[in-house]
Amino acid sequence: MAKITKRSDDYSQWYHDIVIGAEMADYAPVRGCMVIRPWGYSIWERIQRALDDMFKATGHENAYFPLLIPKSFLEKEAEHVEGFAPECAVVTRGGDKDLEEPLVIRPTSETIIWAMYKKWIQSWRDLPLLYNQWCNVVRWEMRTRLFLRTAEFLWQEGHTAHATADEAREEAERMLGVYRTFAEEWMAMPVLVGRKSDSQKFAGAETTYTLEALMQDGRALQAGTSHYLGQNFAKAFDVRFQNKDGALEYVYASSWGVSTRLVGALVMSHSDDRGLILPPRLAPVQVVIIPILKAGADNEAIRAAAARFAEGLGEGVRVRVDDRDNVSPGWKFNEWELKGVPLRVELGPKDLAAGQAVLVRRDTGEKKPLPQGELAVSIPALLDEIQAGLFSSAKERLRTGCRSADEYAGFRRVLDETGGFVYAPWCGGRECEDRVGEETKATVRLIPDDAEACPACMVCGKGPAKRVPFARAY
Amino acid sequence: MAKITKRSDDYSQWYHDIVIGAEMADYAPVRGCMVIRPWGYSIWERIQRALDDMFKATGHENAYFPLLIPKSFLEKEAEHVEGFAPECAVVTRGGDKDLEEPLVIRPTSETIIWAMYKKWIQSWRDLPLLYNQWCNVVRWEMRTRLFLRTAEFLWQEGHTAHATADEAREEAERMLGVYRTFAEEWMAMPVLVGRKSDSQKFAGAETTYTLEALMQDGRALQAGTSHYLGQNFAKAFDVRFQNKDGALEYVYASSWGVSTRLVGALVMSHSDDRGLILPPRLAPVQVVIIPILKAGADNEAIRAAAARFAEGLGEGVRVRVDDRDNVSPGWKFNEWELKGVPLRVELGPKDLAAGQAVLVRRDTGEKKPLPQGELAVSIPALLDEIQAGLFSSAKERLRTGCRSADEYAGFRRVLDETGGFVYAPWCGGRECEDRVGEETKATVRLIPDDAEACPACMVCGKGPAKRVPFARAY
Repeated sequence: MAKITKRSDDYSQWYHDIVIGAEMADYAPVRGCMVIRPWGYSIWERIQRALDDMFKATGHENAYFPLLIPKSFLEKEAEHVEGFAPECAVVTRGGDKDLEEPLVIRPTSETIIWAMYKKWIQSWRDLPLLYNQWCNVVRWEMRTRLFLRTAEFLWQEGHTAHATADEAREEAERMLGVYRTFAEEWMAMPVLVGRKSDSQKFAGAETTYTLEALMQDGRALQAGTSHYLGQNFAKAFDVRFQNKDGALEYVYASSWGVSTRLVGALVMSHSDDRGLILPPRLAPVQVVIIPILKAGADNEAIRAAAARFAEGLGEGVRVRVDDRDNVSPGWKFNEWELKGVPLRVELGPKDLAAGQAVLVRRDTGEKKPLPQGELAVSIPALLDEIQAGLFSSAKERLRTGCRSADEYAGFRRVLDETGGFVYAPWCGGRECEDRVGEETKATVRLIPDDAEACPACMVCGKGPAKRVPFARAY
Repeated sequence: MAKITKRSDDYSQWYHDIVIGAEMADYAPVRGCMVIRPWGYSIWERIQRALDDMFKATGHENAYFPLLIPKSFLEKEAEHVEGFAPECAVVTRGGDKDLEEPLVIRPTSETIIWAMYKKWIQSWRDLPLLYNQWCNVVRWEMRTRLFLRTAEFLWQEGHTAHATADEAREEAERMLGVYRTFAEEWMAMPVLVGRKSDSQKFAGAETTYTLEALMQDGRALQAGTSHYLGQNFAKAFDVRFQNKDGALEYVYASSWGVSTRLVGALVMSHSDDRGLILPPRLAPVQVVIIPILKAGADNEAIRAAAARFAEGLGEGVRVRVDDRDNVSPGWKFNEWELKGVPLRVELGPKDLAAGQAVLVRRDTGEKKPLPQGELAVSIPALLDEIQAGLFSSAKERLRTGCRSADEYAGFRRVLDETGGFVYAPWCGGRECEDRVGEETKATVRLIPDDAEACPACMVCGKGPAKRVPFARAY
């Protein structure tokens, strides 16, 4: 069994130990890359399924665009190429020949998608296009942190085309809302939402909206972004449509994405020193039933009872019976705790005789016997309770993790003492933002819609200013 | 509305017209690459879902391995590198620097996966590993045929590791069976199964099993393959395990895959000169309800009735109401026929008054009025009937498409006159196989398990020989 470093000793090592120990992922032999192992991937599959259902319910369709993008496409949008070109992996040979034009592996797909939209959009009747794709992207990274920062990662990217600016902006905001609902209701992870500052926005966007979550160590994590792109890509790729008045107009756009990074966020939102804690709605296995087998004894009655319980739980509960006989019950307890399964049911000969089973909660560690007849009713209710409990603990952590400061000195003290989000007045200027970043490693995480007006920036002392959350971030 | 070339005029153009006209896919601005549009992608999503459920039901788990593979990995298995190196796209630059070692974009993932299996497999207790991944791969192709042959394509690749040769071979055969069941029960596409000849097997395999389908124009299409890899990759990556006797042994392997090519096979299995015909189980929309709206009239009652029917069909049926008012009913009929939706329900004011609707089958064109109250019962039954009907037509086509010849001259005549599979005696030698290929463009599609023994090869006249199906293929 893998040993897990304590969070209080080394948070970063603790994270690494859980991801490796729970067999969620591993380092690949290619620098910057990871392998997502079945336990981690099955969490990602559940994330995908839930989000995909939400995308379809809001009118989106999936499509697939090419992995390889001509380098010249990237160069058509000035900010975009500046932001992404330095991070690109470049294919220069194919089929044993040098290519005439190098191809980049998509770091994001706006350019190839808008090159296609030019073929498909002529009239207002062709709009909106509400497309999404699930795929891999590559951004050249040298420092790997499994799930959080890898050269290749999996994500979804929505790319929509609209006849008006209002509609495109509403779309970007709607999808931010979808992400927020997903984060809260599925990941049990509360988030702050708002706009990014100019320095932090997506290369090529007019506005970037962001979701920011708070990890247990007081660092922020950007969990997803949604961009209003205005007409920038339509202009770069000359995508115009005939509007209802018969005039030609450039198309308006949004794009939005979340990635396998969410799996890392999930780990750092709920887990403890014994391992992963998974919210039931995303747990690949919600209940593990462990028959207590004795070497040399006749274990058939116990095995049969375990199988019967599993069946009795019905299709609504994801259950696994762990009846391996080459590891001890204690070893199994530890393993499933490390893997974060929300509920464990222990079933030994004495339990069987007493008509009961022992139920153990992964989140609280609470252990109680329960009459066997009640399991099928109690377990679904308990899973809901655990989901709600994780969310309310996380909300409480976010609430207490949001602090306020007015002066720069006080700001720095709070940041160093407690971490978390520190709300402080900022004039909106790049210089002040950069200075805070250099001196404290904290960045403006977002600008809330309802940011409090303040008389003076904590850095330059000039006004008007707004109170915005700063944090050190992953 | 796109115009569809007749099959009898130009089969290849007919295929192209359907794929483009039904908005299944489009050519990408990158040579050899395609864009999968929502209609095509939603068919692929249904293929994925059905196969993925079957993989999981047979004990497999999904994982994800890196896109980029060090070139040296490919070179560790001699046949493998010979087969794949000439088709590779190669990344030579990353993050604005030349790479020390070039990385190839995976053409298939045996090498990177077995490099990881070396980390994960120590003992017989770690076996079997039954992993699958859904991903994109790149094999440098210059001639694009949408879905059938593209430089980048989507697929799944299963990679399993076993303690014994028998178990690995059984796995390869089991997955061939899964593919066959899928082809028959979901795609309504009958297949021949068997082993590939040595010249056609996967680079690095001991045995390649294949599924071969027959397209309407008499050409064969390889629909999927499953490989018994023996210990080839275990030896190349030094993956050994301690067996139950405590001795070290190389691990045995299988791999198996199907790709977006299946979408092309689907088109060429069932469609007609009016467009795509989709088997109901894979149709993104199974029933389209078209209210007959009149310009200037009050269409609310019709719209409401259409919505009511759609709801009445319940969750088991994928239904769409097409109540757009900027195109005519006739235009809609053509569009949904082109897109292959199995059933159309027309609902006009007179139908509404008469308490009926008009039901039109895409496969037979049959049109009949039906009392509205019977729709919810009739439609699911009719969808099953259509699925079964497509399969039995396709089986009949395969049956009549299999012919026999004993002499080479007769073989060539049958091949030219009728196409299809021509079963003829072959000695198993590479020279005879190559000569047939050069002279007729037909290849040995597979070697059936129960191939009939024949006294003499039709090419060299030597024996013993086996009767195997030759065909021209996609």
